[in-house]
Amino acid sequence: MYMDRDDYLVKSKEAAKEALRLHSFYRGKIEVNLKSCVRDFNDFALWYSPGVAEPCKKIAENKEDVYKYTNKANLCAVVSDGTRVLGLGDIGPEASMPVMEGKALLFKYLGGVDAFPICVDTKDADELIEFVKMLQPSFGAINLEDISSPKCFYVLDRLKKECEIPVWHDDQQGTALVTLAGLFNALKIVDKKIDQVKTVLIGAGAANICTVRLFIAAGMDPEKIILVDSRGTLHKGRTELIEQHPIKWELAQTTNGSQVAGGAAEACKDADVLIGLSKPGPKTIKKAWVESMAKEAIVFACANPVPEIWPWEAKEAGARIVSTGRSDFPNQVNNSLGFPAIFRGVLDIHAIRISDKMCIAAAEELAACAPDGGLNPEMILPSMDMWEVFPRVATVTAMKGIEQGLARISISREECYDKAKSFIKRAQDQTRMAMEMGFIAEPPENK
Amino acid sequence: MYMDRDDYLVKSKEAAKEALRLHSFYRGKIEVNLKSCVRDFNDFALWYSPGVAEPCKKIAENKEDVYKYTNKANLCAVVSDGTRVLGLGDIGPEASMPVMEGKALLFKYLGGVDAFPICVDTKDADELIEFVKMLQPSFGAINLEDISSPKCFYVLDRLKKECEIPVWHDDQQGTALVTLAGLFNALKIVDKKIDQVKTVLIGAGAANICTVRLFIAAGMDPEKIILVDSRGTLHKGRTELIEQHPIKWELAQTTNGSQVAGGAAEACKDADVLIGLSKPGPKTIKKAWVESMAKEAIVFACANPVPEIWPWEAKEAGARIVSTGRSDFPNQVNNSLGFPAIFRGVLDIHAIRISDKMCIAAAEELAACAPDGGLNPEMILPSMDMWEVFPRVATVTAMKGIEQGLARISISREECYDKAKSFIKRAQDQTRMAMEMGFIAEPPENK
Repeated sequence: MYMDRDDYLVKSKEAAKEALRLHSFYRGKIEVNLKSCVRDFNDFALWYSPGVAEPCKKIAENKEDVYKYTNKANLCAVVSDGTRVLGLGDIGPEASMPVMEGKALLFKYLGGVDAFPICVDTKDADELIEFVKMLQPSFGAINLEDISSPKCFYVLDRLKKECEIPVWHDDQQGTALVTLAGLFNALKIVDKKIDQVKTVLIGAGAANICTVRLFIAAGMDPEKIILVDSRGTLHKGRTELIEQHPIKWELAQTTNGSQVAGGAAEACKDADVLIGLSKPGPKTIKKAWVESMAKEAIVFACANPVPEIWPWEAKEAGARIVSTGRSDFPNQVNNSLGFPAIFRGVLDIHAIRISDKMCIAAAEELAACAPDGGLNPEMILPSMDMWEVFPRVATVTAMKGIEQGLARISISREECYDKAKSFIKRAQDQTRMAMEMGFIAEPPENK
Repeated sequence: MYMDRDDYLVKSKEAAKEALRLHSFYRGKIEVNLKSCVRDFNDFALWYSPGVAEPCKKIAENKEDVYKYTNKANLCAVVSDGTRVLGLGDIGPEASMPVMEGKALLFKYLGGVDAFPICVDTKDADELIEFVKMLQPSFGAINLEDISSPKCFYVLDRLKKECEIPVWHDDQQGTALVTLAGLFNALKIVDKKIDQVKTVLIGAGAANICTVRLFIAAGMDPEKIILVDSRGTLHKGRTELIEQHPIKWELAQTTNGSQVAGGAAEACKDADVLIGLSKPGPKTIKKAWVESMAKEAIVFACANPVPEIWPWEAKEAGARIVSTGRSDFPNQVNNSLGFPAIFRGVLDIHAIRISDKMCIAAAEELAACAPDGGLNPEMILPSMDMWEVFPRVATVTAMKGIEQGLARISISREECYDKAKSFIKRAQDQTRMAMEMGFIAEPPENK
């Protein structure tokens, strides 16, 4: 039914070669263009000295006017220190540039957001925090990316507190958001309630830790959650965590109510939900563990490039719904379904923060966007090419932000949807036009 | 012949109103667009995970490959702390955004450079320096803008030493470069030699101090130069400068060989060249001072919006050549003739620095671009709409950089010119197309 590991390796080698060839052909994936008219050279006297002094004076009088006279309201910085890039580890800020440019490309194409990649030459958490705080005047929001754990928790938590614009770490919150959306539909299909299910998370990196936090905020009972890291389940006996990883230690206190010790095998027994965000498979999650789960089990095996267990093996072991991180299997947990919409929404209300409630509302709407009312076990999430997902999720995010008093401006639901839709449509039309007109050249044939 | 002060004020009030209206219509002057193809959603697997890992790995192996696989080679940061914005003073980073966006617009339209505005929330010089150093991985060059004096000298000097990409402060070097270009042609017309002229500079801010430095590097005799600040000429008796302004104190030692004390009146006597970059006029430079200058005097009165002396008054007082900072008078000293070309040139050779010799070569070429071989006293500089100025100056800058060992790559003169030309043409064509297609809307009629 699906390709096997060897097929996959051949295919991915070809894709890698093509990616390299095209990166060297285009030399960058984003550029900076004019968005205001130049009818003739006299317009420069409006856009630059002397005319430009007028908006400057207005903003000097009232700082909030920066949203009115500049592009701040559509600008997001994509910031990384390059310390945990994809599965490649600490490859440094220069080597992380292709990823951040790619992220900026997705931001624009899917969300109509002007995102700009900034790869920062520091490995120090406090320096990175100060750097991002100094960036604030120019941006409407900040997206952190590929920062090593546990540093990323400290960086995000402090920036969320200390910044006056939304700060988001997509490896944490983006993954958590899309996972929660998938879970909402999966639970609907198997007819279980979020506050009653028993959940096991294998891997305790940034994504799973944030996912646990969001699951709890969405109503999951912390006592029914067990996290498993490379040394076993988190429980009150794991005192080495006090020193090594205070955030895991905190979770060891609040989760795992029955204090299951041991490893994944012990944790999985009778679990309803299994979330893997750990080491690439295919044998990281064992068939026997899935077999020991409760009936109508839900398995998210999201390691990349190879899921912790092949979907067909999980199904053979009794899983009802299986999700992975891969686009060539059903039910892809794909961050690109989340961040473009979230940022579209928060930028359009000039938000000061992104709350858990906004995330949960976005996840509910994302779940509602899945085909067949989310009831198809092979399609618990929508796909990226369903464009209406983005303005829908953006609108719900924005409305929740306004409701919670986290918006600088108020707009109606309809206005918000229309605005989001037109931003996204413009970005896609503009790209197509640039390709048709040859401003984006066709890549040379691959010989 | 020219409009008077009242006409000017009426006209500039109208322009100010229009600038505000259009800034609020466009809400920003630059945006971030895709420059690589999206044929279908499968391309995302090349531009982002998993394909993007390949260029990342290459760059991790060899950092210089970042120029090959990303847009670094065409990216310039426009960085300001908003402490000295136009003539408005310390209005803060938010209020400086319209200027930095405007600068980015000029960078792209005139130089084909992808420039991105970053307004930094700090007033501390060392914090600003650390910030810019951390930015380096993402950019091919840095343009500093509107930073207060004397902080700007310290910031620029340290960054020039400590960065591995070119750092330029346009208020200093850009102004100096274009002034020098104008001076080259002016001297040709009056048949005087740069190493023999006596020069007075009124105003000792960032621009004039940098201009003096560049004049000296270009061959002017420091002993024949007199700087005048608000307290009079710089000379060895100005010991209060030791504490207050070490850079001026240094100039007080090396310039003014005959130790002229007093003010501008005393300094101007028998001077061949007068450069005003001080307070707006029209009576900042007195007619009598110009009358006391040598025959065939050259007067640059570059304060904005009103020159230190009206051009016709300077001419009545005997000046042969008069230059101002205004586009509605002849001989505009316009920074926009310089920075787009300088950056085009240094980016195309992946330069590590911009040297004085590169600046001087650029100024010579800029002078050579003036109509009539630079011999028309009313046209000592080319104008912005002469597009060939930019690739010509870019090429000369790049060639000098290669000659001096300041380039990471070597390209031929012809290749450099063609590349520069095609970058610039693409930017202008793309803007025109975006306007024709409605991606840049026509501004509503002004009623």
